[in-house]
Amino acid sequence: MTQKVVVVGAGPVGSLAALYAAVRGFEVQVYELRADLRDPDTIPLNFSKSINLALSERGIHSLRQTGLSNLADAVLAETFPMHGRMIHVRKNGEYVRQPQIYDARGRSLLAMDRTGLNKALLDQLEAMPNVKLMFNHKLVGADFRKKIAWFEHRPKSAEEQGDEFEITFDLMIGADGAHSAVRYHLMKFVPMYFKQEYIDKLWCQFHVPPAPDGEFRIPSHYLHIWPQDESMFIALPNLDKTFTATLFLTRKGFEELDESGKVVEYFDKKFPGVVPDLITEDDLRKQYASNQHLPLISIKCTPYHYGNSGVIVGDAAHAMVPFYGQGMNAGLEDVRVLFDLIDKHPNDRSKALSEYTKERTPDAHTINDLALGNYREMASDVKKPLYLLRKWIEEQLYIYIPSAGWATQYSRVTFSNVRYSEVQRLAHHQAKILNRVVGLGFVSALVSALWFVRSGRAQRAKMRILLLISVVAQKLQSLMKN
Amino acid sequence: MTQKVVVVGAGPVGSLAALYAAVRGFEVQVYELRADLRDPDTIPLNFSKSINLALSERGIHSLRQTGLSNLADAVLAETFPMHGRMIHVRKNGEYVRQPQIYDARGRSLLAMDRTGLNKALLDQLEAMPNVKLMFNHKLVGADFRKKIAWFEHRPKSAEEQGDEFEITFDLMIGADGAHSAVRYHLMKFVPMYFKQEYIDKLWCQFHVPPAPDGEFRIPSHYLHIWPQDESMFIALPNLDKTFTATLFLTRKGFEELDESGKVVEYFDKKFPGVVPDLITEDDLRKQYASNQHLPLISIKCTPYHYGNSGVIVGDAAHAMVPFYGQGMNAGLEDVRVLFDLIDKHPNDRSKALSEYTKERTPDAHTINDLALGNYREMASDVKKPLYLLRKWIEEQLYIYIPSAGWATQYSRVTFSNVRYSEVQRLAHHQAKILNRVVGLGFVSALVSALWFVRSGRAQRAKMRILLLISVVAQKLQSLMKN
Repeated sequence: MTQKVVVVGAGPVGSLAALYAAVRGFEVQVYELRADLRDPDTIPLNFSKSINLALSERGIHSLRQTGLSNLADAVLAETFPMHGRMIHVRKNGEYVRQPQIYDARGRSLLAMDRTGLNKALLDQLEAMPNVKLMFNHKLVGADFRKKIAWFEHRPKSAEEQGDEFEITFDLMIGADGAHSAVRYHLMKFVPMYFKQEYIDKLWCQFHVPPAPDGEFRIPSHYLHIWPQDESMFIALPNLDKTFTATLFLTRKGFEELDESGKVVEYFDKKFPGVVPDLITEDDLRKQYASNQHLPLISIKCTPYHYGNSGVIVGDAAHAMVPFYGQGMNAGLEDVRVLFDLIDKHPNDRSKALSEYTKERTPDAHTINDLALGNYREMASDVKKPLYLLRKWIEEQLYIYIPSAGWATQYSRVTFSNVRYSEVQRLAHHQAKILNRVVGLGFVSALVSALWFVRSGRAQRAKMRILLLISVVAQKLQSLMKN
Repeated sequence: MTQKVVVVGAGPVGSLAALYAAVRGFEVQVYELRADLRDPDTIPLNFSKSINLALSERGIHSLRQTGLSNLADAVLAETFPMHGRMIHVRKNGEYVRQPQIYDARGRSLLAMDRTGLNKALLDQLEAMPNVKLMFNHKLVGADFRKKIAWFEHRPKSAEEQGDEFEITFDLMIGADGAHSAVRYHLMKFVPMYFKQEYIDKLWCQFHVPPAPDGEFRIPSHYLHIWPQDESMFIALPNLDKTFTATLFLTRKGFEELDESGKVVEYFDKKFPGVVPDLITEDDLRKQYASNQHLPLISIKCTPYHYGNSGVIVGDAAHAMVPFYGQGMNAGLEDVRVLFDLIDKHPNDRSKALSEYTKERTPDAHTINDLALGNYREMASDVKKPLYLLRKWIEEQLYIYIPSAGWATQYSRVTFSNVRYSEVQRLAHHQAKILNRVVGLGFVSALVSALWFVRSGRAQRAKMRILLLISVVAQKLQSLMKN
């Protein structure tokens, strides 16, 4: 008998999970709380509730692994490559832009519109005979032992009561986001470690129109960053020559801006080259007032499954802050890993799901932590000379010793499919080696200096040199550890 | 206009919150998911889902502060005092029982049946003209901005769809337990830090009948403990001369017992004096098989409120493991603190609720941590001589220097209404003083010993004494730190 897979959530991750299930011949039903975003009446989710995306290797690989040859290409056709960051800062009062290339071997991040990706996946799904798509359906209950769930069809406003009905399933996949209802019901069946926290940064999105000549207003192939430590402004290019920009700022910072109304002054001071080159004063004020100021949540939990009947993927399992650009990619990768394990254990779904939890928990927790830590890199480190020095050293190793498999953590996260937990292990390993190398240099410097001192002349000056060498070596070591 | 207070959850904490609201003249509605436990057809919650209680000062004080003079007395009449712990262990192969008094000034913990407390509160509520009690009602949604909520009336089985209806409220108090629906909906309106974890101990309850002569089978005025480090068996007395006993054991331990079926052998080995004195072999096997093996959850979150319209109390805000006997007491204290603040800010509910969050968060987090730490005290430390020494020293200080306000952490948690966070601060402060005192003793011992050594005779032996003094002093210091 054909197994029935119910997917809750028709965002990119849920849609991909449904596709993976469909190509395997399962009977697939997809339930989505919101309206169909392909419907012209639907307000695009993209501009009100999600930062636009940077698709990278893990996401692309997961799209390719569906086996649907045209899917990945159709999606890639809608992306816009970003070769590096462009840092916008004032140095000695001068406004400067510093490009920083992402990958010494030329690989790029791909900027893309969340809605575009979602539409492509939904169109594919719609074309499959064994898939049923249901929008405006809310999960109101699930019994993972009896494999029964209850949905409510909400055709009109969110507050009206709709029809409730019961369905059965063999496997329910929860891809219903950070505030997952599937996870909420799953928790009643399995003792789950769960932690959510909101970081002290809110975000507000801005639309940057094309220039009067119809072109991009600033160099297009970059992820633009205005790093200001406690705040940050970024801009990602879109295919239509616009940018989608985001302001990140502490809650208190937003409150102060709300009170003073001095948004333009704030941008003038902090983010050189934005007003009026990217956005006019009026438009900035208007968008700041009308676009929501939204919180950023970080979620860790485990296990991700119950028995052989329920599993969560994507933000439902590990919503993360957006600073490593991996949230969506990790979600798409979840789907690939999940179905690899389902294929590996065709007659033991319990085993497949428990292996999924076992493999995916350390990986998701790792990228979650890296994402939290990466705010500092984006908003502060990128403008510091020592950061640039370290980046340069690592790039040289990467380029000149490729045989050693040397690679930065960033590059492994972004341009490979190596498990996140393994990436971190490798990064620690490399840091150790670098430390030893630097340490060795330090020891020989120390020995020669001591010898020099013993030889008797001008001891004080020599001791100062010694001290300096030691300080520099230590600084390098602490840099390498990161 | 009379304000409408909706309480979700009619357990002891919810019922007390409703009473506090009712005596203040609010219009009160109480919605409870389960059936009325006073109904003879209702299966008592107590014996399937909750460890019985140890009522202590905070709980009693909160009952008294309702202003209903007969309430606390009616409740207290149903309690059974426990003057101390009775430790059951084998020493050199001999089965021994060691009583350990709780309080040098003679105060007791009060064992009580959760259902009894709940019934007393519900009876009081029912007698109030401005209270409406509604059982079998499930909260399905809440909008804390518009102050509207949706409930479903579930008259029959949990799976059937009942009638859904809408109500309005001025203030919703969520007292609906660890898996709180109010908290779930509150989270959609306020960015909430939330963490839940299950500790690696499950529990299984056992009923110990009276002896054939109708009396208690073991000394009645004690909380009996069989401490076995990774497992623990406890028994609390009931008014009807029975004991309610609980086995705590790791998940793996339970699985091994399930597999081997050697429950009686396990009890024989670990818990001397239980089989067959308290419970027969057959009965133990039967109860082990039929009574559920349940997990223990620990929850921390903050904030506890949204605006002026929603707040959570009790387990919904801070479910804790049962090892400090404070879960219920902390919940009842929540209610007292909440209404103290509501009284303090009669015209500013937002302020009252935000002060509640501000005051209660550190207190709840503290008792939560103490409860987690207390498993070790109950299951291991109580049988160690050093623990007994420390207890003895502290009791002497407590008895002989009452003017200094010296008290143990346990006694302040259990027999006072001092804020939990303040209790911890005081405990750290006392530990510092004790350390100094012990340190001072150590220094003088050291000085005299050194003088002795300098005087020249038998240096080696003297050095050994010195070492011994130092070891003992350090041991004492580390004990005092706890």
